[in-house]
Amino acid sequence: MSRYPNFGFEVRHRAPDSRARLGRLTTPHGTIETPNFIFCGTKAAIKGATTEQMRAAGTDIILANTFHLMIQPGAERVAKLGGLHRMMNWSGPMLTDSGGFQIFSMGHGGVADEIKGRNRAERPKSLVKISEEGAEFRSYLNGEKLFLSPEESIRLQRLLGADLIVQLDECTPYHVGADYIADSMAMSMRWGDRCLEEFDRGADGSQALYGVVQGGTDPTLRRESAEYTADRDFFATAVGGTLGGNKAQMYEVVGMCSPYLHPDRPVHLLGIGNFQDVFEGVALGMDTFDCVHPTRVARHGWALKKGAPGERVNLRNARFGEDSGPIDETCGCEACQHYSAGYLHHLVRVGELLGVMLVTLHNVFTMNRLMREVRAAIAADRLADARTEWIVD
Amino acid sequence: MSRYPNFGFEVRHRAPDSRARLGRLTTPHGTIETPNFIFCGTKAAIKGATTEQMRAAGTDIILANTFHLMIQPGAERVAKLGGLHRMMNWSGPMLTDSGGFQIFSMGHGGVADEIKGRNRAERPKSLVKISEEGAEFRSYLNGEKLFLSPEESIRLQRLLGADLIVQLDECTPYHVGADYIADSMAMSMRWGDRCLEEFDRGADGSQALYGVVQGGTDPTLRRESAEYTADRDFFATAVGGTLGGNKAQMYEVVGMCSPYLHPDRPVHLLGIGNFQDVFEGVALGMDTFDCVHPTRVARHGWALKKGAPGERVNLRNARFGEDSGPIDETCGCEACQHYSAGYLHHLVRVGELLGVMLVTLHNVFTMNRLMREVRAAIAADRLADARTEWIVD
Repeated sequence: MSRYPNFGFEVRHRAPDSRARLGRLTTPHGTIETPNFIFCGTKAAIKGATTEQMRAAGTDIILANTFHLMIQPGAERVAKLGGLHRMMNWSGPMLTDSGGFQIFSMGHGGVADEIKGRNRAERPKSLVKISEEGAEFRSYLNGEKLFLSPEESIRLQRLLGADLIVQLDECTPYHVGADYIADSMAMSMRWGDRCLEEFDRGADGSQALYGVVQGGTDPTLRRESAEYTADRDFFATAVGGTLGGNKAQMYEVVGMCSPYLHPDRPVHLLGIGNFQDVFEGVALGMDTFDCVHPTRVARHGWALKKGAPGERVNLRNARFGEDSGPIDETCGCEACQHYSAGYLHHLVRVGELLGVMLVTLHNVFTMNRLMREVRAAIAADRLADARTEWIVD
Repeated sequence: MSRYPNFGFEVRHRAPDSRARLGRLTTPHGTIETPNFIFCGTKAAIKGATTEQMRAAGTDIILANTFHLMIQPGAERVAKLGGLHRMMNWSGPMLTDSGGFQIFSMGHGGVADEIKGRNRAERPKSLVKISEEGAEFRSYLNGEKLFLSPEESIRLQRLLGADLIVQLDECTPYHVGADYIADSMAMSMRWGDRCLEEFDRGADGSQALYGVVQGGTDPTLRRESAEYTADRDFFATAVGGTLGGNKAQMYEVVGMCSPYLHPDRPVHLLGIGNFQDVFEGVALGMDTFDCVHPTRVARHGWALKKGAPGERVNLRNARFGEDSGPIDETCGCEACQHYSAGYLHHLVRVGELLGVMLVTLHNVFTMNRLMREVRAAIAADRLADARTEWIVD
């Protein structure tokens, strides 16, 4: 019998000229069309939007971070409050990560910067002790010593109750040696097996497990890691770890994995997701994406915009001061339907919460619109055309 | 012909045992039932809620502050963006104040504290020069020298475009001598006349003017000021200025005004509005209230609650940590319908914007519910019963 009786993934159409594909991912909380974008509700909250607003802005799926929630309010407490779905008032599909990414980034300086290869400064003394058993680290809240093993990660994610959960892996940084990456990848594989065993011990059909591809920027290791995930009975695959030092290398690394991933399983690209990343990732066979980018830049007054240079506009810019039109005339979001760019400029300038809220809704809507248009483009075999509409190179 | 052809106020029922009354206040943007509460959108934004959410939470009327808007983004710019209603996407009635309150409070230390008599420390050197002509002050944004006269206040409020606007008055602090208060009150009367003249110069039927009662805590001055407002052709009356050093004195001061206010005009009590204030004010003949209290305390994790000691609960309190029930079982707001107190506790503790947003919606809904229940109680001649339901003395 399948480990994942209540889950499914169906590929409905494939692009003729790339690995892009249309899919349908089914979970106990509903089915989503892919490619799709998973919005980050790190601490069990989307920053600046209610789940009702997320839904109204076209959102199909959200995630929360195990690392943050194990510290506050604790996975047991989330379970007592009914699990993530009930607690957050979200009835659709949901994912949690393993907690590893944030822990290992504590040991390697900045989180995203390091993974994306941008931080070349010397790293501070590690706050994390990694062993075969798992990772020991201290709570950022109160210094308490905590331990995350593959089994503990699965146990915590079971308490949190998301549909889609992720194996614990060591997320290796960009600036470590080849030996470290190879050894780490091998350990992540063993951790993957331990996660599958722990998963089976508590499985009730409500969750499905992702295996994670590591291997740094080395094609041989990436292939080996991808083949490992395909060989084991994971429901789906996530591509993680160091994705290179720049965009080109990132896409190259994803491309190293693609041919060796299990062809019938959904593939998630971890922590990546501006417009360009989505187009490149989709063409490389990625089905879902997640990134804090859309909500984070909203808090700084940046509105994502189809066809804009750099993919966005800065609402603080004086040119918007007396602009009585919307941010984007072609956008159907609440902010563009009801509010002028001039008003949003004012709100952002004076630091009103409402500015964050409205720009967040716009950015969420825009990402969902991007994914809708990407899906329509794949269906019509015109993904390249959609790319030129969205991205000014 | 009436100065206010598109406005009206109709008293529909009077309490048998107090000055409480049910009314209907008509503006070009609709009619509201009174008593009612006016929510503060200081800088042309309700802190933490969209106007759609305000409407869904039962809100009938909002205000914005001329002082803040003349500094950012400027009244001319608001006019270019279509005026406050269009800019804020608010189709209902709206009020702006004169700008005086904030300016004069710059000259007297803290704003609300001083007006409410709570600040007995020595005051810093005044930042405001007050003369018969008006008030000269410096922008908190860039130090620019600004001048607000009665004529300028009306001109700015005309540009902002609210339905209900307020004459410029000097808002005297609690700790000044009797002579100062008397002289100031007389000047505020002359400013009231100048506001009426300026109002007429630009009147197009879209706005209506409030006269303001001053006079500190002196019964003779309060009577004189109230009689002045009744004598002039203001559409409505606002009770402002120093309302005493404690709650009892505040109600006493309001009571000094009540008998001498024009009986057929709506009366607004400026800047006051917790549950108790509303019950006391209504009994003294006040028809509308405004206060930043409901949205401000939400930002600090306080949820207003019918029948709670102190009128509110502190969601940071550990007792809410695993509370899977709503803040208030009897409340129909979005937060209470869909989210547990335990989740809100988590959001407030970790500082999520969503916590502010949801508690704000709850507090707004609760104030609107208070006003609905106050109106129903007046209609049924049982205001005292409603008071005991809402307030634990």
